[in-house]
Amino acid sequence: MDQKLKNTRLIHMIEGIKVIGFDADDTLWVNEIYFRDTEEQYRKLITPYTQDLETIIPKLYRTEIQNLRLYGYGVKAFILSLMETALRITDGNLPNHVIEEILLLGKKQLSHPVDLLDGVKDTLNALVGRYLLILVTEGDLLDQENKLRNSGLEYFFHHVEIMSDKRTSGYQKLLNHIDIRAEEFLMVGNSVRSDILPPLALGCYTIHVPYPITWEHELVAEPVIHSHFYEVESLWDIISLLP
Amino acid sequence: MDQKLKNTRLIHMIEGIKVIGFDADDTLWVNEIYFRDTEEQYRKLITPYTQDLETIIPKLYRTEIQNLRLYGYGVKAFILSLMETALRITDGNLPNHVIEEILLLGKKQLSHPVDLLDGVKDTLNALVGRYLLILVTEGDLLDQENKLRNSGLEYFFHHVEIMSDKRTSGYQKLLNHIDIRAEEFLMVGNSVRSDILPPLALGCYTIHVPYPITWEHELVAEPVIHSHFYEVESLWDIISLLP
Repeated sequence: MDQKLKNTRLIHMIEGIKVIGFDADDTLWVNEIYFRDTEEQYRKLITPYTQDLETIIPKLYRTEIQNLRLYGYGVKAFILSLMETALRITDGNLPNHVIEEILLLGKKQLSHPVDLLDGVKDTLNALVGRYLLILVTEGDLLDQENKLRNSGLEYFFHHVEIMSDKRTSGYQKLLNHIDIRAEEFLMVGNSVRSDILPPLALGCYTIHVPYPITWEHELVAEPVIHSHFYEVESLWDIISLLP
Repeated sequence: MDQKLKNTRLIHMIEGIKVIGFDADDTLWVNEIYFRDTEEQYRKLITPYTQDLETIIPKLYRTEIQNLRLYGYGVKAFILSLMETALRITDGNLPNHVIEEILLLGKKQLSHPVDLLDGVKDTLNALVGRYLLILVTEGDLLDQENKLRNSGLEYFFHHVEIMSDKRTSGYQKLLNHIDIRAEEFLMVGNSVRSDILPPLALGCYTIHVPYPITWEHELVAEPVIHSHFYEVESLWDIISLLP
């Protein structure tokens, strides 16, 4: 057990939890790295048609943020932003076969097999039956359900709670929906911005399981200090925080 | 009141309902017609670049069906299929500005104001408080939540239940989720395939409110005959079927 976890254990265990919400992407299975892979293949694809080599990825990121309100999260939104950015930075010089390749990159990403992160099955096995487990995600429902089915984890989860955006209002709806008090809900995830800060603001418990790669949009500058906040190194470590 | 409704009233009222699920698109607000509008503008856009004039729309439909498993429903899936079909039937001759126009058609459709169908507000007003009302949809969560917010109907609904595909398994999950028996649930919608047949198979009650335009994929050849099935001409007519 690492030093950080030891310290949080010294403070107290998390008592009174009835329902545990798990983020899916990069908490239970690999995700962000596929976006980075697609981005890299995309960069190579359009490099011959633009003078703008250094700024392909920053411009893509700007397009994604601009489209977030209209497209939301997920791979389909990502593909549409890849397309829009490519057209914008190549001044009308993009051959049709490159656009087809971009569509294929998207399909390839959508069909990628699910790679579970370390210790996920053991952790869920240790918790199922003792707590109601739900999957809390802001991606694309079809995509997430496909991943859940292919992950072999379907059995552990009572249901998939899909949010259009993981803000306080989304978590408040979730609490109303499953009809429990904030302090009976524990959220576990890799994104401080989406999985930690909003439920924390409502009075829920939260455990942060950092993942080495995080989408720029999800980064939060300030460290979190809060009596309902815990941080662990790997998912399995949450077991020792729960009675 | 039309003859058909009179006949169903003579049979019996729908007793014992606790929760009513409403389909959203083309049941509460206009939807399919925007897809048809986009298709028509798309057809005009790519006509100069293909020999294949008669088959643009049938080929688009085939692409949509092929992509359904990977992309699911909704406008983003539709735009990606518009793009793929355009590239396929123009043999590499599609100028970049036309592809940009296709992306813009999609954004226009996603930003379209919500047009409520006749009698929707009055109907929901008459039911709210007497039944728990939920919105049951298979579109894109972000898109549906945006429409619900812009429709002014948010107040009526306990929550939005989003399904990746409206099949029996999706409705079974919904029943487990809200924890009621099938015969306490009534589903109201315009699509026999998605809103009527699956809940009927589970023992729920169903009311079909036909809409003049239906996506080919949603059409069902056989008429429905079942003691839990009702058909009305307009949404307001459901009031007289409920005690």
